[in-house]
Amino acid sequence: MTEPGSPPHRYAEAGVDLRAAERFVNRLRGVASRATRPEVLSGIGAFGGAFALQGYRQPVLVSSTDSVGTKLKLAPLTGQYRSLGHDVVNQSLNDVLVSGALPLFFLDYIASNQVSDDDRIAMVEGVAEACAAAGCALIGGETADLPGVYQPGDFDFVGFVVGAVERDEMIDGSRIRPGDALLGLPSSGLHTNGYALARQVLEVGIDGDAAAERARLEQVYPELGGTLGAALMTPHRSYIPEVRPHVARLKGMAHITGGGLPGNLPRVLPDGVCARVRWGAWEVPPLFRLIQSRGEIALGEMLEVFNMGIGMVLVVGEADADALLAAIPGAVQLGGIESSPADGTKFVLEGMP
Amino acid sequence: MTEPGSPPHRYAEAGVDLRAAERFVNRLRGVASRATRPEVLSGIGAFGGAFALQGYRQPVLVSSTDSVGTKLKLAPLTGQYRSLGHDVVNQSLNDVLVSGALPLFFLDYIASNQVSDDDRIAMVEGVAEACAAAGCALIGGETADLPGVYQPGDFDFVGFVVGAVERDEMIDGSRIRPGDALLGLPSSGLHTNGYALARQVLEVGIDGDAAAERARLEQVYPELGGTLGAALMTPHRSYIPEVRPHVARLKGMAHITGGGLPGNLPRVLPDGVCARVRWGAWEVPPLFRLIQSRGEIALGEMLEVFNMGIGMVLVVGEADADALLAAIPGAVQLGGIESSPADGTKFVLEGMP
Repeated sequence: MTEPGSPPHRYAEAGVDLRAAERFVNRLRGVASRATRPEVLSGIGAFGGAFALQGYRQPVLVSSTDSVGTKLKLAPLTGQYRSLGHDVVNQSLNDVLVSGALPLFFLDYIASNQVSDDDRIAMVEGVAEACAAAGCALIGGETADLPGVYQPGDFDFVGFVVGAVERDEMIDGSRIRPGDALLGLPSSGLHTNGYALARQVLEVGIDGDAAAERARLEQVYPELGGTLGAALMTPHRSYIPEVRPHVARLKGMAHITGGGLPGNLPRVLPDGVCARVRWGAWEVPPLFRLIQSRGEIALGEMLEVFNMGIGMVLVVGEADADALLAAIPGAVQLGGIESSPADGTKFVLEGMP
Repeated sequence: MTEPGSPPHRYAEAGVDLRAAERFVNRLRGVASRATRPEVLSGIGAFGGAFALQGYRQPVLVSSTDSVGTKLKLAPLTGQYRSLGHDVVNQSLNDVLVSGALPLFFLDYIASNQVSDDDRIAMVEGVAEACAAAGCALIGGETADLPGVYQPGDFDFVGFVVGAVERDEMIDGSRIRPGDALLGLPSSGLHTNGYALARQVLEVGIDGDAAAERARLEQVYPELGGTLGAALMTPHRSYIPEVRPHVARLKGMAHITGGGLPGNLPRVLPDGVCARVRWGAWEVPPLFRLIQSRGEIALGEMLEVFNMGIGMVLVVGEADADALLAAIPGAVQLGGIESSPADGTKFVLEGMP
């Protein structure tokens, strides 16, 4: 234990400086105030954020939490922390959107060790921008210094969203029937999934030689339209702007995250139906093809790890398909719903090479 | 990049096994189902958890997020993961309780590297137990494998709670007046604050020699009534059972977390008033005295880092003080509210040695 005569401990020496933390929280408060709504009753700094729910007859609150995963390993190499804020918000917005819910409020959690205040502020600025764009209030959050849990420069970044939908407008997949159409909306990149594999294959963000990793990220690939780093850091896309006007016509939605199309599309299907998707119905973007060829990865595995260019799938009645394809930029018909075969299969990808 | 002829990458080799993750999620689903409510519309596994809000006239949603901090560094040494689940829930419940809100639902986030499924299940079991005890539904969460972010055996553990209170019953401190009484409720230990300093002073959970750290934690201290490890791992206490019956009589509440009494009590006071607390009004528990003497820490710093034995402060009208002191086990009168001095001071601790 402490030797007699050693200097008294001070909390700042233990890695926590409460005064600096207070200054930092004041900066955060300013950033967070950019994403507010009239329903917000208290700012960051109260013990809990408060939101006066109004305007709903029978509100169903839909909530989700997720982190940006190991995509964050690329932030110190690219200097792009702000875009991670868009990632952490948009992925959660999409998760509640699949129930037909629009976001009310968001809270973020950043834990780190020796990540600069500026970089952490940039992350929260990204959160506030993405929240404001979605009409969502940023009502709280936590930024924790956790030396001993994180290595110097490392951090984790987690988001939590609460959305709401009228109970009788909730989308739960129960109206999905054979004959319905499957529409795919393009992803903006890997979104926030598959980075464990992508980083390994591309040899970036794996705690190797930082200069070599930076050089790989700064390399320009004509097929990617820019650097590898820019392609990998492209933020997770929010589908609210495209989907919101049509939400009353949707029977189901699947957010294509970890597990890919085969892992996520069946989650929203009722028993007795199966999704049949045609390979070739959409073009797999160059970034996925680059990862596949570099890593010599089987196509089946690629499909289970990455979104492969489709970030959201809509299930709609056949009669609505053409109108929605015309109305939503980039939407493609992936296939359709049919009766399940006897073995209960819920996902078939036909025409795979 | 990948050499020609090297074996194809598989996602499992990159530290992520989607099949094992699916089995794990099924176990989690069973655990989470122990903490539910009739309002819950979907289980874990949907993209978002859904909760049909009902029974409120003018609901205000109050939300908070926090992690257990570096208390979690003691879990691998003591084998106590389950109690961390109580920590992560109860600290958040207290944060929304100070607005008068009772919890509706909770989500947890566990990110780790090589923490066993059993230990992670134990954490979620603790979450489910604490939620069930508070009448709160566990409607979702995320367990992420993040090799590259966490060192082997390390993890982070974050919780998100949403509670609700009628708008006209919300406690916001605005009715606090000079003459009001300050009542303190005992903490159960350090709760979840000050572990950065406590671990350093007590030389446990600092990634030193594991056998030596375990021996220190297993040492019995008569004044602690057991081992140091048991004292340090005592879960953060929820004040809902004691506070709930009296919530209509409370003018303000402060949850004593990081920053201690001087940092948290002023947060709930309106302008123009000051909290005067008498040193000696409560007995500082032996664990805090042990840390102070071992670390040769100034009393003023102890008060800013630790709860020092008071985990929650209630602000009540003078006429209600005696009844509440009699009704709430362990409650003590800490002092009272007076007009602020000219310099705007909001906290005075009198009689400090």
